[in-house]
Amino acid sequence: MNVEFINPFISSLVNVLETMAQTKLQPGKPKKKGDEVAVGDVSGLIGMVGPQVKGSFSISFEESLALEIMQRMLGEKPAKINAEVTDMVGEITNMVTGGAKLELSGKGYDFDMATPIVVSGKQHTITHKVDGPKIILPFSSDAGSAYLEICFDKL
Amino acid sequence: MNVEFINPFISSLVNVLETMAQTKLQPGKPKKKGDEVAVGDVSGLIGMVGPQVKGSFSISFEESLALEIMQRMLGEKPAKINAEVTDMVGEITNMVTGGAKLELSGKGYDFDMATPIVVSGKQHTITHKVDGPKIILPFSSDAGSAYLEICFDKL
Repeated sequence: MNVEFINPFISSLVNVLETMAQTKLQPGKPKKKGDEVAVGDVSGLIGMVGPQVKGSFSISFEESLALEIMQRMLGEKPAKINAEVTDMVGEITNMVTGGAKLELSGKGYDFDMATPIVVSGKQHTITHKVDGPKIILPFSSDAGSAYLEICFDKL
Repeated sequence: MNVEFINPFISSLVNVLETMAQTKLQPGKPKKKGDEVAVGDVSGLIGMVGPQVKGSFSISFEESLALEIMQRMLGEKPAKINAEVTDMVGEITNMVTGGAKLELSGKGYDFDMATPIVVSGKQHTITHKVDGPKIILPFSSDAGSAYLEICFDKL
Protein backbone atom coordinates (compact mmCIF):
# COMPACT_ATOMS: atom_id res chain seq x y z
CA MET A 1 0.00 0.00 0.00
CA ASN A 2 1.09 3.49 -0.86
CA VAL A 3 2.73 5.33 2.07
CA GLU A 4 1.03 8.47 0.79
CA PHE A 5 -2.23 6.78 1.70
CA ILE A 6 -1.28 5.62 5.21
CA ASN A 7 0.41 8.73 6.54
CA PRO A 8 -2.75 10.88 6.67
CA PHE A 9 -4.35 8.33 9.01
CA ILE A 10 -1.29 8.30 11.26
CA SER A 11 -0.96 12.07 11.43
CA SER A 12 -4.71 12.48 11.91
CA LEU A 13 -4.70 10.05 14.87
CA VAL A 14 -1.66 11.69 16.49
CA ASN A 15 -3.27 15.10 15.96
CA VAL A 16 -6.68 14.21 17.35
CA LEU A 17 -5.25 12.69 20.52
CA GLU A 18 -2.81 15.52 21.07
CA THR A 19 -5.36 18.30 20.61
CA MET A 20 -8.35 16.61 22.22
CA ALA A 21 -6.65 14.73 25.07
CA GLN A 22 -3.12 16.16 25.40
CA THR A 23 -1.85 12.63 24.78
CA LYS A 24 1.26 12.05 22.73
CA LEU A 25 1.32 8.82 20.75
CA GLN A 26 4.69 7.41 19.68
CA PRO A 27 4.40 5.36 16.48
CA GLY A 28 6.24 2.02 16.60
CA LYS A 29 7.44 -0.11 13.72
CA PRO A 30 4.73 -0.82 11.10
CA LYS A 31 3.93 -4.51 10.61
CA LYS A 32 2.90 -6.01 7.32
CA LYS A 33 2.93 -9.70 8.18
CA GLY A 34 -0.39 -11.48 7.83
CA ASP A 35 -0.14 -13.24 11.19
CA GLU A 36 0.03 -10.05 13.23
CA VAL A 37 -3.29 -8.88 14.60
CA ALA A 38 -4.43 -5.70 16.31
CA VAL A 39 -5.30 -6.33 19.97
CA GLY A 40 -7.15 -4.05 22.36
CA ASP A 41 -9.90 -3.72 24.98
CA VAL A 42 -11.98 -1.17 23.06
CA SER A 43 -11.80 -0.54 19.30
CA GLY A 44 -13.40 1.80 16.81
CA LEU A 45 -13.92 0.54 13.26
CA ILE A 46 -15.15 2.21 10.11
CA GLY A 47 -15.67 1.13 6.52
CA MET A 48 -14.63 3.27 3.55
CA VAL A 49 -15.95 3.13 -0.01
CA GLY A 50 -14.57 5.10 -2.93
CA PRO A 51 -15.03 5.03 -6.69
CA GLN A 52 -11.87 2.95 -7.17
CA VAL A 53 -11.25 1.41 -3.76
CA LYS A 54 -12.87 0.06 -0.65
CA GLY A 55 -11.35 -0.66 2.70
CA SER A 56 -11.53 -0.40 6.45
CA PHE A 57 -9.85 1.40 9.33
CA SER A 58 -9.64 0.43 12.99
CA ILE A 59 -8.09 1.89 16.09
CA SER A 60 -7.76 -0.34 19.18
CA PHE A 61 -6.98 0.99 22.65
CA GLU A 62 -5.73 -0.69 25.76
CA GLU A 63 -8.25 -0.05 28.57
CA SER A 64 -5.82 2.10 30.60
CA LEU A 65 -5.26 4.41 27.64
CA ALA A 66 -8.97 4.71 26.80
CA LEU A 67 -9.84 5.60 30.40
CA GLU A 68 -7.01 8.13 30.62
CA ILE A 69 -8.21 9.79 27.39
CA MET A 70 -11.66 10.12 29.01
CA GLN A 71 -10.04 11.78 32.04
CA ARG A 72 -8.09 14.21 29.87
CA MET A 73 -10.94 15.02 27.47
CA LEU A 74 -13.85 15.16 29.88
CA GLY A 75 -12.28 15.46 33.35
CA GLU A 76 -13.86 12.23 34.55
CA LYS A 77 -12.38 8.77 34.61
CA PRO A 78 -14.80 5.85 34.58
CA ALA A 79 -13.75 2.70 36.49
CA LYS A 80 -14.14 0.61 33.36
CA ILE A 81 -15.21 0.80 29.72
CA ASN A 82 -18.82 1.96 29.64
CA ALA A 83 -21.20 3.61 27.14
CA GLU A 84 -19.46 7.00 27.50
CA VAL A 85 -16.12 5.43 26.63
CA THR A 86 -17.51 3.66 23.57
CA ASP A 87 -19.15 6.95 22.50
CA MET A 88 -15.77 8.67 22.78
CA VAL A 89 -14.02 5.91 20.80
CA GLY A 90 -16.70 6.22 18.11
CA GLU A 91 -16.11 9.98 17.96
CA ILE A 92 -12.32 9.56 17.76
CA THR A 93 -12.78 7.01 14.95
CA ASN A 94 -14.95 9.48 13.04
CA MET A 95 -12.54 12.38 13.60
CA VAL A 96 -9.41 10.46 12.63
CA THR A 97 -10.99 9.05 9.46
CA GLY A 98 -12.55 12.41 8.63
CA GLY A 99 -9.16 14.15 8.96
CA ALA A 100 -7.48 11.56 6.73
CA LYS A 101 -10.33 11.75 4.21
CA LEU A 102 -9.90 15.52 3.94
CA GLU A 103 -6.17 15.28 3.37
CA LEU A 104 -6.50 12.43 0.86
CA SER A 105 -9.25 14.21 -1.01
CA GLY A 106 -6.77 17.04 -1.64
CA LYS A 107 -4.47 14.45 -3.22
CA GLY A 108 -7.17 13.09 -5.51
CA TYR A 109 -8.10 10.01 -3.46
CA ASP A 110 -11.79 10.11 -2.66
CA PHE A 111 -13.85 7.86 -0.45
CA ASP A 112 -17.01 7.99 1.64
CA MET A 113 -17.11 6.82 5.24
CA ALA A 114 -19.67 4.40 6.63
CA THR A 115 -20.85 4.82 10.24
CA PRO A 116 -18.44 3.79 13.03
CA ILE A 117 -18.82 0.61 15.08
CA VAL A 118 -17.25 0.21 18.52
CA VAL A 119 -16.17 -3.15 19.94
CA SER A 120 -15.63 -3.64 23.64
CA GLY A 121 -14.17 -6.73 25.33
CA LYS A 122 -10.95 -7.71 27.07
CA GLN A 123 -8.12 -8.40 24.63
CA HIS A 124 -10.20 -8.86 21.51
CA THR A 125 -8.47 -9.11 18.17
CA ILE A 126 -9.37 -7.37 14.92
CA THR A 127 -8.81 -8.90 11.49
CA HIS A 128 -9.47 -6.92 8.33
CA LYS A 129 -10.56 -9.28 5.57
CA VAL A 130 -9.25 -7.90 2.33
CA ASP A 131 -7.20 -9.20 -0.59
CA GLY A 132 -4.86 -6.22 -0.68
CA PRO A 133 -2.06 -5.34 1.75
CA LYS A 134 -2.75 -4.51 5.38
CA ILE A 135 -0.77 -2.26 7.66
CA ILE A 136 -0.76 -2.59 11.45
CA LEU A 137 0.89 0.21 13.36
CA PRO A 138 1.47 0.01 17.11
CA PHE A 139 1.59 3.18 19.20
CA SER A 140 2.83 3.69 22.73
CA SER A 141 2.03 6.48 25.19
CA ASP A 142 2.41 7.32 28.88
CA ALA A 143 -1.02 5.80 29.53
CA GLY A 144 -0.96 2.62 27.45
CA SER A 145 -0.78 1.34 23.91
CA ALA A 146 -2.93 1.52 20.79
CA TYR A 147 -3.03 -0.22 17.42
CA LEU A 148 -4.03 1.38 14.16
CA GLU A 149 -4.93 -0.90 11.28
CA ILE A 150 -5.81 0.16 7.79
CA CYS A 151 -6.36 -1.75 4.60
CA PHE A 152 -7.70 -1.30 1.12
CA ASP A 153 -8.51 -3.87 -1.51
CA LYS A 154 -6.33 -2.09 -4.07
CA LEU A 155 -3.49 0.49 -3.93
CA MET B 1 -36.20 1.92 10.31
CA ASN B 2 -38.25 0.55 7.47
CA VAL B 3 -39.04 -3.18 7.84
CA GLU B 4 -38.63 -3.43 4.08
CA PHE B 5 -34.99 -2.62 4.68
CA ILE B 6 -34.31 -5.06 7.51
CA ASN B 7 -36.03 -8.16 6.16
CA PRO B 8 -33.56 -8.73 3.27
CA PHE B 9 -30.71 -8.98 5.81
CA ILE B 10 -32.64 -11.46 7.94
CA SER B 11 -33.68 -13.65 5.02
CA SER B 12 -30.19 -13.47 3.53
CA LEU B 13 -28.61 -14.64 6.82
CA VAL B 14 -31.11 -17.47 7.28
CA ASN B 15 -30.58 -18.49 3.63
CA VAL B 16 -26.79 -18.44 3.73
CA LEU B 17 -26.57 -20.55 6.88
CA GLU B 18 -29.18 -23.00 5.67
CA THR B 19 -27.63 -23.56 2.25
CA MET B 20 -23.94 -23.35 3.26
CA ALA B 21 -24.05 -25.06 6.65
CA GLN B 22 -27.44 -26.84 6.91
CA THR B 23 -28.09 -24.75 10.01
CA LYS B 24 -31.55 -23.42 10.73
CA LEU B 25 -31.64 -20.09 12.58
CA GLN B 26 -34.81 -19.18 14.47
CA PRO B 27 -35.28 -15.41 14.68
CA GLY B 28 -36.22 -14.13 18.17
CA LYS B 29 -37.91 -10.88 19.09
CA PRO B 30 -36.27 -7.77 17.57
CA LYS B 31 -34.95 -5.24 20.10
CA LYS B 32 -34.90 -1.53 19.50
CA LYS B 33 -33.84 -0.28 22.91
CA GLY B 34 -30.60 1.64 23.05
CA ASP B 35 -29.22 -0.26 26.02
CA GLU B 36 -29.30 -3.65 24.36
CA VAL B 37 -26.02 -4.71 22.79
CA ALA B 38 -25.03 -7.54 20.51
CA VAL B 39 -22.76 -10.03 22.29
CA GLY B 40 -20.67 -12.82 20.79
CA ASP B 41 -17.32 -14.57 20.63
CA VAL B 42 -16.67 -13.90 16.95
CA SER B 43 -18.33 -11.17 14.86
CA GLY B 44 -18.27 -10.04 11.27
CA LEU B 45 -18.84 -6.33 10.58
CA ILE B 46 -19.24 -4.37 7.38
CA GLY B 47 -19.85 -0.73 6.51
CA MET B 48 -22.31 0.37 3.84
CA VAL B 49 -22.40 3.64 1.92
CA GLY B 50 -25.15 4.72 -0.46
CA PRO B 51 -26.08 7.96 -2.21
CA GLN B 52 -28.67 8.78 0.47
CA VAL B 53 -27.66 6.65 3.44
CA LYS B 54 -24.77 5.15 5.32
CA GLY B 55 -24.79 2.46 7.93
CA SER B 56 -23.32 -0.75 9.26
CA PHE B 57 -24.16 -4.40 9.65
CA SER B 58 -22.81 -6.95 12.12
CA ILE B 59 -23.39 -10.60 12.82
CA SER B 60 -22.08 -12.04 16.11
CA PHE B 61 -21.80 -15.76 16.80
CA GLU B 62 -21.43 -17.71 20.00
CA GLU B 63 -18.25 -19.82 19.78
CA SER B 64 -20.17 -23.15 19.79
CA LEU B 65 -22.24 -22.05 16.78
CA ALA B 66 -19.24 -20.71 14.82
CA LEU B 67 -17.34 -23.97 15.33
CA GLU B 68 -20.34 -26.09 14.36
CA ILE B 69 -20.78 -24.04 11.17
CA MET B 70 -17.12 -24.82 10.33
CA GLN B 71 -17.84 -28.52 10.87
CA ARG B 72 -20.91 -28.43 8.65
CA MET B 73 -19.37 -26.28 5.90
CA LEU B 74 -15.87 -27.72 5.77
CA GLY B 75 -16.09 -31.06 7.59
CA GLU B 76 -13.53 -30.03 10.18
CA LYS B 77 -14.15 -28.58 13.59
CA PRO B 78 -11.35 -26.50 15.11
CA ALA B 79 -10.94 -26.62 18.92
CA LYS B 80 -11.29 -22.86 19.14
CA ILE B 81 -11.71 -19.74 17.04
CA ASN B 82 -8.71 -19.52 14.71
CA ALA B 83 -7.82 -17.81 11.42
CA GLU B 84 -9.94 -20.29 9.42
CA VAL B 85 -12.98 -19.45 11.55
CA THR B 86 -12.48 -15.69 11.17
CA ASP B 87 -12.09 -16.21 7.38
CA MET B 88 -15.39 -18.07 7.33
CA VAL B 89 -17.12 -15.36 9.39
CA GLY B 90 -15.75 -12.73 6.99
CA GLU B 91 -17.12 -14.72 4.04
CA ILE B 92 -20.55 -15.14 5.68
CA THR B 93 -20.63 -11.38 6.40
CA ASN B 94 -19.88 -10.66 2.73
CA MET B 95 -22.43 -13.16 1.47
CA VAL B 96 -25.25 -12.00 3.77
CA THR B 97 -24.68 -8.32 2.98
CA GLY B 98 -24.27 -9.08 -0.72
CA GLY B 99 -27.57 -10.98 -0.76
CA ALA B 100 -29.39 -8.15 1.00
CA LYS B 101 -27.77 -5.57 -1.28
CA LEU B 102 -29.03 -7.42 -4.35
CA GLU B 103 -32.59 -7.63 -3.03
CA LEU B 104 -32.63 -3.98 -1.90
CA SER B 105 -31.17 -2.81 -5.19
CA GLY B 106 -34.24 -4.29 -6.89
CA LYS B 107 -36.37 -2.13 -4.60
CA GLY B 108 -34.48 1.04 -5.46
CA TYR B 109 -32.23 1.19 -2.37
CA ASP B 110 -28.61 1.26 -3.45
CA PHE B 111 -25.45 1.06 -1.38
CA ASP B 112 -21.86 -0.06 -1.74
CA MET B 113 -20.20 -2.39 0.73
CA ALA B 114 -16.88 -1.70 2.42
CA THR B 115 -14.58 -4.65 3.21
CA PRO B 116 -15.52 -6.90 6.14
CA ILE B 117 -13.76 -6.84 9.51
CA VAL B 118 -13.82 -9.79 11.91
CA VAL B 119 -13.58 -9.41 15.69
CA SER B 120 -12.62 -12.32 17.89
CA GLY B 121 -12.65 -12.39 21.69
CA LYS B 122 -14.74 -13.99 24.45
CA GLN B 123 -18.08 -12.21 25.00
CA HIS B 124 -17.24 -8.95 23.27
CA THR B 125 -19.98 -6.43 22.65
CA ILE B 126 -20.70 -4.48 19.47
CA THR B 127 -22.15 -0.96 19.45
CA HIS B 128 -23.11 0.72 16.19
CA LYS B 129 -22.66 4.46 16.54
CA VAL B 130 -25.31 6.14 14.50
CA ASP B 131 -27.99 8.78 15.03
CA GLY B 132 -30.75 6.79 13.38
CA PRO B 133 -32.59 3.75 14.74
CA LYS B 134 -30.82 0.46 15.38
CA ILE B 135 -32.24 -3.03 15.26
CA ILE B 136 -30.78 -5.96 17.17
CA LEU B 137 -32.15 -9.35 16.29
CA PRO B 138 -31.28 -12.48 18.31
CA PHE B 139 -31.29 -15.90 16.64
CA SER B 140 -31.21 -19.32 18.20
CA SER B 141 -30.17 -22.64 16.67
CA ASP B 142 -29.35 -26.20 17.71
CA ALA B 143 -25.67 -25.22 18.00
CA GLY B 144 -25.85 -21.84 19.75
CA SER B 145 -27.03 -18.28 19.33
CA ALA B 146 -26.26 -15.36 17.05
CA TYR B 147 -27.06 -11.65 17.00
CA LEU B 148 -27.67 -9.61 13.89
CA GLU B 149 -27.44 -5.84 14.19
CA ILE B 150 -28.12 -3.33 11.47
CA CYS B 151 -28.41 0.40 11.46
CA PHE B 152 -28.54 3.32 9.08
CA ASP B 153 -28.23 7.01 9.77
CA LYS B 154 -31.53 7.71 8.02
CA LEU B 155 -34.56 5.61 6.94
